[in-house]
Amino acid sequence: MFESAELGHKIDKQRYEQEAPELRRALLAAQYELVSQGSFPVVILIAGVDGAGKGETLNLLNEWMDPRHIQTNAMRPVGDDLDGRPPMWRFWRALPPKGRIAVYVGSWYSQPLVKRVYGEIKTARLDQESNDILRFERMLADEGTLLLKFWLHLSRDQQRKRFKELEKTKRTAWRVSETDWKHLAMYKRFQSTAKHLLRMTSTPHAPWLIVEGGDERYRNLTIGTSILAAMRQRLDAARDAKEAKDAKDAKDAKDAKDAKDAKDAKATVPASPAVSPSERLPSLDGVSVLDRLQLDQELDKKDYQDELESLQGRLNLATRHKRFNKLSVVAAFEGCDAAGKGGAIRRVTQALDARNYDVIPIAAPTDEEKSRPYLWRFWRMVPARGRIAIFDRSWYGRVLVERVERYCGVPDWTRAYGEINDFEEALVANRTVVLKFWLQISKQEQLRRFEERAEVAHKQHKITDEDWRNREKWDAYNIAVCEMFDRTSTEHAPWTLVEANNKYFARLKVMRTMVEAIEAAL
Amino acid sequence: MFESAELGHKIDKQRYEQEAPELRRALLAAQYELVSQGSFPVVILIAGVDGAGKGETLNLLNEWMDPRHIQTNAMRPVGDDLDGRPPMWRFWRALPPKGRIAVYVGSWYSQPLVKRVYGEIKTARLDQESNDILRFERMLADEGTLLLKFWLHLSRDQQRKRFKELEKTKRTAWRVSETDWKHLAMYKRFQSTAKHLLRMTSTPHAPWLIVEGGDERYRNLTIGTSILAAMRQRLDAARDAKEAKDAKDAKDAKDAKDAKDAKDAKATVPASPAVSPSERLPSLDGVSVLDRLQLDQELDKKDYQDELESLQGRLNLATRHKRFNKLSVVAAFEGCDAAGKGGAIRRVTQALDARNYDVIPIAAPTDEEKSRPYLWRFWRMVPARGRIAIFDRSWYGRVLVERVERYCGVPDWTRAYGEINDFEEALVANRTVVLKFWLQISKQEQLRRFEERAEVAHKQHKITDEDWRNREKWDAYNIAVCEMFDRTSTEHAPWTLVEANNKYFARLKVMRTMVEAIEAAL
Repeated sequence: MFESAELGHKIDKQRYEQEAPELRRALLAAQYELVSQGSFPVVILIAGVDGAGKGETLNLLNEWMDPRHIQTNAMRPVGDDLDGRPPMWRFWRALPPKGRIAVYVGSWYSQPLVKRVYGEIKTARLDQESNDILRFERMLADEGTLLLKFWLHLSRDQQRKRFKELEKTKRTAWRVSETDWKHLAMYKRFQSTAKHLLRMTSTPHAPWLIVEGGDERYRNLTIGTSILAAMRQRLDAARDAKEAKDAKDAKDAKDAKDAKDAKDAKATVPASPAVSPSERLPSLDGVSVLDRLQLDQELDKKDYQDELESLQGRLNLATRHKRFNKLSVVAAFEGCDAAGKGGAIRRVTQALDARNYDVIPIAAPTDEEKSRPYLWRFWRMVPARGRIAIFDRSWYGRVLVERVERYCGVPDWTRAYGEINDFEEALVANRTVVLKFWLQISKQEQLRRFEERAEVAHKQHKITDEDWRNREKWDAYNIAVCEMFDRTSTEHAPWTLVEANNKYFARLKVMRTMVEAIEAAL
Repeated sequence: MFESAELGHKIDKQRYEQEAPELRRALLAAQYELVSQGSFPVVILIAGVDGAGKGETLNLLNEWMDPRHIQTNAMRPVGDDLDGRPPMWRFWRALPPKGRIAVYVGSWYSQPLVKRVYGEIKTARLDQESNDILRFERMLADEGTLLLKFWLHLSRDQQRKRFKELEKTKRTAWRVSETDWKHLAMYKRFQSTAKHLLRMTSTPHAPWLIVEGGDERYRNLTIGTSILAAMRQRLDAARDAKEAKDAKDAKDAKDAKDAKDAKDAKATVPASPAVSPSERLPSLDGVSVLDRLQLDQELDKKDYQDELESLQGRLNLATRHKRFNKLSVVAAFEGCDAAGKGGAIRRVTQALDARNYDVIPIAAPTDEEKSRPYLWRFWRMVPARGRIAIFDRSWYGRVLVERVERYCGVPDWTRAYGEINDFEEALVANRTVVLKFWLQISKQEQLRRFEERAEVAHKQHKITDEDWRNREKWDAYNIAVCEMFDRTSTEHAPWTLVEANNKYFARLKVMRTMVEAIEAAL
């Protein structure tokens, strides 16, 4: 979930000085338009890791926009101002009116997160509280609020480095408290709880936007650009809706409808259309998880064959273990065209008893499948205990090909992340080992393989016009793939990214991951 | 929540024989239209109390409609067919395709309910499971499924009577098991758990429809009529959407747009518009909770004054108790115009220390309030510890006047039930005593009071043209009031219905309820 926010994203000074002023101007313009339209309120949450720049971001927004129309709320975790009222009272009270922006540092997420990390509440209670949060945010969305949730992330090393930097000089040393160091020591616990909480509360109408906090310039531009894009989308939609309404009103008046009818009609027109801030922007410095993969890995045939044999032996043993009958395995293979999914799957199945597994190739859905909810075709194939289901392409088609090729609408693929997480969670809760492999090759390597396929007779069936067409959409697919990792690499079902320019390396990484996961589950 | 389903609803034989054939014909026509349109699937859940007619309803639907296009699923509580797969697998597998109807007796609600009643899981776990259910049902709705959830209810006495009847004759005795009698002994526990579960899972897109199960004819007609209304609404909407789309397609073709554009546009048109089965039908026999109130109650002035004095004394003592500083009180007064809300409130405040309470009259919202989420104006007024907030009219305006007068849209007031329940739950969880009074007078008594107000000089300000206009909408208000009771009389914040033709009686009932609730909370 935090993979894309541990890449050391950076924006250099020159670019920042060029782009920041333009962004500020656009943000300010959007803010004034919001004030004059008065069509919806904006709520911005700044949450995340200590030292990742939460306070600085609050200051930044006040500096970049007109502070007279921004409410900033730096809420302490416990409300000494409550005087016996429910905890949510503070947040309700601080809700902005239409046309205004409210920024919260320390939001309704702080307390549940901290209480769970400190062990004061259990996961079931945390889930109850995140359910309350979901209902609250759903209400905000239904009432027309634009809700933007930023999570500023630092890796453990980045966080330590940051604290040490701050402590070096007197001017900033006061900003690092004992609690900060204590929390750093609890980093893992904080992160796994945050992952869970963020996953439970990322919805199409209010998804979490995770931002790497290490580089101030990258952080500022990313947050500013995201806020601008979301505001512009809603402002434009509200303006269009108003113009359409005005045109209709003018026509109605011309038609001399009686006054009462007009009033009734007006009452049912929603104040502002609920557009979701769904399409996430690609990272500003152009660096993605995929770029950081070392696609070319050294491995010669001899070493490959030796280790393959050993891993296949372990896999075979594991799946014949008597406790294997208490488990099941679901393995999803995704990847670029020609990345070697089929070859990797064959190396797995060679080690299995043919009576124990199914390889399920996923192509276009049948009529039977199309007439039911999207995940139905995959639920049908959930393996019984003691069995292994291997999916050659999978339910992730919804957020890959269906998204990129627009086979489904934006609301469909944005809600699919949550539905998929629910699906996998149900499997894991039921003692299914869920494995998800993404096989990545470079664009050059793909070209080489395509050309090889076109030339070699027995490989020609493997290359189609569609493959060439998909290749043209390489960048669009990359954006979809990275968002998929961020939104569905969960604590219970993480993605395994496989560097696949070298087929031998890729196959072994798949085998090793699978063997280790099954052995651990036995 | 079950108040409207314990009134002994009945339909006589003559009416049934007249209406049932017509209903069957219409249901069958709707079913065939669904099959030929193939625009959406229908899922019907039949849940509720044992002996309330769940199995009979399943049979009835098969008899009334064409069983070739209905899938019936009588699911046992524990799935011996799972073979290690997740519990939801059975339900996923049985989902109907578009154009088909699936009826479930024993649904995804059975297991969580029974496990909680038997104490195998705690409330936090039940809430987790109902959260999973909410996400599943949200997915069904997003995917276009029409989901209807019926809860068949019997009072404890009705249930006992039913079992005894069944046991009388050999032909039916087998239908009553030991478990049935055991569950009857646990009736209270079952009901309070069911109330909680139903409240947590009643959403605008899939509200629970509670049906009294005692009279077969009433039950059949109610369920049949509800299914017909919901199906017709969706079928008509789908047909209209299709016609609009066909017209557009024809125009597009005429405009000779290129083929690719048309394909893209098509892909983003949703298969069928998601209309919510929101507006509930009034009860078929015309009997409502309000009709069953004995509005004329005997109480003479002398007895009234004696008891009033004693209750006011108790209330004063209770609110000066040292533990009262750990509590707060929120009391909402609603009722017909001229039902005596003001008078009742004054009798309460006479007993209180003026520094400790606020009376908050609720009129049209201010601009400040209108520009924020609906409940904001009430959250602002949440009392601090040791204080009492008395609302003269309340947040229930959303589902009363705003619904009836169409000041807000259907989606707004249907989601308001859940939002209001969340609000009150947050108060109760925080040691606030929540009291909700509905003061009811008869239509004749209202007329008498209106005329009196018009005649007596010092009362003239209390009667306006609006009062007379509201009176014309008496029936529409009654429907809204009854649905309000059903959806918001919860285990933690029940409604108190006050028979108010006799003002003395009404005031004492209010006082007594309040005193007892506060004394119990100390």
